[in-house]
Amino acid sequence: MAKSQKKQPRPKAETPKGFRDYFGADVTERKAMLDRIAEIYHRHGFDPLETSAVETVEALGKFLPDVDRPNAGVFAWQEEAVPGGGSGDWLALRYDLTAPLARVAAQFRNDLPSPYRRYAMGPVWRNEKPGPGRFRQFYQCDADTVGSASVAADAEICAMLADALEAVGINRGDYIVRINNRKVLNGVLEAAQVEGGDKADDVLRTIDKFDKVGRDGVLALLTTGRKDASGAEIEGVGLRPDQAEPVLAFLTSKGASNAETLANLRSAVGDSAIGAEGVDELAQIAAMLDAMGVGGDRAIIDPSVVRGLGYYTGPVFEAELTFEILDEKGRKRQFGSVAGGGRYDGLVERFTGQKVPATGVSIGVDRLLAALRAKGLAGEAQIGPVVVTVMDRDRMPDYQAMVAELRNAGIRAEVYLGNPKNFGNQLKYADKRRAPVAVIQGGDEAERGVVQIKDLVLGARIAAEASLEEWKAQPAQTEVARSELVAEVRRILG
Amino acid sequence: MAKSQKKQPRPKAETPKGFRDYFGADVTERKAMLDRIAEIYHRHGFDPLETSAVETVEALGKFLPDVDRPNAGVFAWQEEAVPGGGSGDWLALRYDLTAPLARVAAQFRNDLPSPYRRYAMGPVWRNEKPGPGRFRQFYQCDADTVGSASVAADAEICAMLADALEAVGINRGDYIVRINNRKVLNGVLEAAQVEGGDKADDVLRTIDKFDKVGRDGVLALLTTGRKDASGAEIEGVGLRPDQAEPVLAFLTSKGASNAETLANLRSAVGDSAIGAEGVDELAQIAAMLDAMGVGGDRAIIDPSVVRGLGYYTGPVFEAELTFEILDEKGRKRQFGSVAGGGRYDGLVERFTGQKVPATGVSIGVDRLLAALRAKGLAGEAQIGPVVVTVMDRDRMPDYQAMVAELRNAGIRAEVYLGNPKNFGNQLKYADKRRAPVAVIQGGDEAERGVVQIKDLVLGARIAAEASLEEWKAQPAQTEVARSELVAEVRRILG
Repeated sequence: MAKSQKKQPRPKAETPKGFRDYFGADVTERKAMLDRIAEIYHRHGFDPLETSAVETVEALGKFLPDVDRPNAGVFAWQEEAVPGGGSGDWLALRYDLTAPLARVAAQFRNDLPSPYRRYAMGPVWRNEKPGPGRFRQFYQCDADTVGSASVAADAEICAMLADALEAVGINRGDYIVRINNRKVLNGVLEAAQVEGGDKADDVLRTIDKFDKVGRDGVLALLTTGRKDASGAEIEGVGLRPDQAEPVLAFLTSKGASNAETLANLRSAVGDSAIGAEGVDELAQIAAMLDAMGVGGDRAIIDPSVVRGLGYYTGPVFEAELTFEILDEKGRKRQFGSVAGGGRYDGLVERFTGQKVPATGVSIGVDRLLAALRAKGLAGEAQIGPVVVTVMDRDRMPDYQAMVAELRNAGIRAEVYLGNPKNFGNQLKYADKRRAPVAVIQGGDEAERGVVQIKDLVLGARIAAEASLEEWKAQPAQTEVARSELVAEVRRILG
Repeated sequence: MAKSQKKQPRPKAETPKGFRDYFGADVTERKAMLDRIAEIYHRHGFDPLETSAVETVEALGKFLPDVDRPNAGVFAWQEEAVPGGGSGDWLALRYDLTAPLARVAAQFRNDLPSPYRRYAMGPVWRNEKPGPGRFRQFYQCDADTVGSASVAADAEICAMLADALEAVGINRGDYIVRINNRKVLNGVLEAAQVEGGDKADDVLRTIDKFDKVGRDGVLALLTTGRKDASGAEIEGVGLRPDQAEPVLAFLTSKGASNAETLANLRSAVGDSAIGAEGVDELAQIAAMLDAMGVGGDRAIIDPSVVRGLGYYTGPVFEAELTFEILDEKGRKRQFGSVAGGGRYDGLVERFTGQKVPATGVSIGVDRLLAALRAKGLAGEAQIGPVVVTVMDRDRMPDYQAMVAELRNAGIRAEVYLGNPKNFGNQLKYADKRRAPVAVIQGGDEAERGVVQIKDLVLGARIAAEASLEEWKAQPAQTEVARSELVAEVRRILG
């Protein structure tokens, strides 16, 4: 038979290499998990943000050395040339949810509340070589607070992370949020007389091996070097033993309580000012967690957390699942990390030139889902959160105790995280947030054990239409005993 | 001052042209709407599917004439060359949810239940010139049944669409699902002695103008032509008036009831066999909707629906919102179409060479959301649907009445839509679906007014472990009165 007739070959029915499809329960289980997390995030005052999947390469900040191939690491393509307008823009799929947040925070800085709390859930794309368990499209689930320099934002995110893990079904005792601080490490480097530059990077790389090689291994690597398992000689960083000492003290300073850990850290940073600042921040975070009712069984100061210390600029946190699973070889091992985050600068600065402090956390969606499966195991309203204002920044733990109480009672609430100096700004903020209620407690109220509760909805109505008599009969602001806070807010919310 | 220092210009913080970001309620309102729709789809036995956003250009089927630029219409890029393996694949972002379904249905044809009911919700991307209200990334929400040639699948989708609209808050009376059939049009073309080819395409293009130019306009365009509003002469298709007659009869055959409409259509198609087949299909759909309790106030046969008739191969449906809104100019107008779909062939054939019939519907997510806003206005379990088996394909309306009852009682249920000839295949299907219960009613049971209810979970347990005594004491199949169907299924499901 003649083979002359050339047929169009059939296309292959294949998911592109490194990509995958989700069927049935794969979709619904992840969604249910994310719904529960979103509910927690929502209750904490975070708003959802869904940016476009596509960004300009310029905005993503992937200015790669190989200018002919701007798609290394990202999936990128060039727009068609605009007639008479030169070559088209390079566009790319987002590779994480932080770069789009930076773009949005800069682009909409005049429209967004500040601080801006947002959560985002969705796929991201990486142009990497696919491998077993390594996919080129995967989900991320992030929560960030942009525009607050206060470590209260960090403490809140740590507490929220613990709540989110419980909301998806992880039992208390089966997870722990560990908190460290890059500033403490900077202090330690100062105490070790290692000032910035390559040597500091070498130290950072070395402490990253603490998990694997332990105290003595790190000591050897920081000083004269050591032989690895294969017998190969690993060069040391070249510190003197007395220089290595503060680093080791830092890594091993975890005590039986946060207080003990903090005391150890204070000794590790010696006279370093930045180190002392870092330890102070951790102490504040510890106090705030305590005030929010988040005990040491849920979140602790742990200087052995080193992941991300090279990237973040302040507090660093990591959530680990502590229950044991059987690995591929049938050996018991801890499940390990499912979320991490910390404080970072320069997020918006690239775009605007202004430094905007930010902190956030990212949950490993696939890992957490795998954990839920290993352990065998959705709604929203359209009204803003209750805003607890800050009259006295030293009493932030008190304010966070209030929001924690409100949240535990199922009421969406947040503490003001901007600069509390100008009280008018806080009320403007509450208005922008469409807060139904603002909670106020100055030093005088604190002494008398009361809080002021401002009914913003009623207040707006009275301001708009009430007569003097009505205004007197229906005060939009009431003073109640501190112990009546939740009951009174609930009464107002109806 | 010297301008010698060249600074890296700051990137622009801008959403790429034609793309947009969704904030807060934009995200949560769409999600809540999609959650409600998903719940309806789920209850009807549809499983979620989330394919990768990226497909090979080959699989998408965008074989465009301009081979140097395969990205016309889609966002596409070429993979890096594989070392020693020639040039890399072209990849692209999906432009709809149907092409990926085709790929999946072919790729996983041995693993998926057949017929395969799936729903999908997610963004799609179009490389088009952006304009006001025209975006390059937008949401689609599709439900399709692949592998069923029965118009019961079409009727089910029409009923489900009506349920979905009510679930998101559209009141009965504020929407209507209109149903037409391409086969009837083919019959009309036959009756008009217009056999396929260019002339048929001309007729199709002309009837598409029925909404705008009306009966007389279409008559003129089908025959000798007419002058448009600007006075320009529009050439006619060149039919004789007696040829145009069946086309006009088709377009205007809608009567006061489905029965009247069907009678008009029967007369319009004359002796055409395909036309008679099309009218029969519509008559079956009308009977099944009736059996499912979907009255003429929710779904009707309406031959004036011409949108999509050129694309689909059988039944075509469109959901319109009939309440009035004010347009940009303050004039009252009906909200209009929010969903459309129909039956199509060749979905999987491109990949496998096998014809696989399919039918589906796509909801315009942004439009429906806009409608909900104009009118001022979420859960799942992990067990398969109740499967109502088909013993007698002529009594499909009876079986659909059963699933409708079950669904109205909140029980996930589906009727078997494959070829019912081999009953063993239906039970295998129920097994694959992890159905907890199968419902069976043969001619004998129908006469006696009873149904057989098979407890598949108990059945599996008895088969695996029960003794003869236990087996006798605990029959896994029971016969109940037809009126007891829901109560008995509910009892078994616990």
